[in-house]
Amino acid sequence: MKRLAKLNGGVAAMAMVAALVLPTAAQADDQDVIDYRQNIMKAMDAQTAAVGKIMSYAIPDDNFASHLESIALAAQTALSSFKEEVQGGESLPAVWENWDDFAEKMNTFSDGLTAAAKLAREEGKDAALNAAFSALTCKQCHDVYRKKD
Amino acid sequence: MKRLAKLNGGVAAMAMVAALVLPTAAQADDQDVIDYRQNIMKAMDAQTAAVGKIMSYAIPDDNFASHLESIALAAQTALSSFKEEVQGGESLPAVWENWDDFAEKMNTFSDGLTAAAKLAREEGKDAALNAAFSALTCKQCHDVYRKKD
Repeated sequence: MKRLAKLNGGVAAMAMVAALVLPTAAQADDQDVIDYRQNIMKAMDAQTAAVGKIMSYAIPDDNFASHLESIALAAQTALSSFKEEVQGGESLPAVWENWDDFAEKMNTFSDGLTAAAKLAREEGKDAALNAAFSALTCKQCHDVYRKKD
Repeated sequence: MKRLAKLNGGVAAMAMVAALVLPTAAQADDQDVIDYRQNIMKAMDAQTAAVGKIMSYAIPDDNFASHLESIALAAQTALSSFKEEVQGGESLPAVWENWDDFAEKMNTFSDGLTAAAKLAREEGKDAALNAAFSALTCKQCHDVYRKKD
């Protein structure tokens, strides 16, 4: 398995290495799987913090719909990133024990954000604010599927 | 200006507060602006790390196009988040001194990722790999517009 440098700031180096690497089927080891899903969660967390600034009227709403769309898109990749059962990180075993519920919650989360984003694009932030609040159900999953601090 | 709790995990509390808050025009103070753009950058960084795992064949490529689309979308919000000249955070004054170049670089970055994502959706990861490498020009901006560690 090939491990390349962290992408940010190292793209040129990666490109050079990649040119020497023949494509192979991806083989994820456990730490890769955990790192991958944690990066997706970090992206969702940062996007949620950004949209929170808009929802609390601290920042103009130009990007309101974009942030909601980003979280919706990331939620779909998050669900995919947990498909392989790899214990560890901040995940509880309940993720895989109750996979159908976990998946349903994540899909509902993504669908709700997509709908709120559509409303925001069509009718503006204020019209979509309640939909966005209702859709941001992070806590419902975290309470059940994430380790406590 | 209203400041609400961090969204992640506090949505219910935010909804209760928001119900008491009449909509007002957003008024960003400097720390809000810096926090906001830093969260967007964090999201881009985490998405880039995630796509890096796929590009280095450590993780299957199911979400390859989605990650590229997420970074492209975030780049557009990033550009918007820097429009107001607020010095601080990791930004150098050059961002606003050379705004046209900064904006052009960010738009090129976003457009390149959108094109790479389209190619990935249509022809798969391997066909889009070079386009993705070429599009991930994080370093070109960071070298000029971000403070060194």
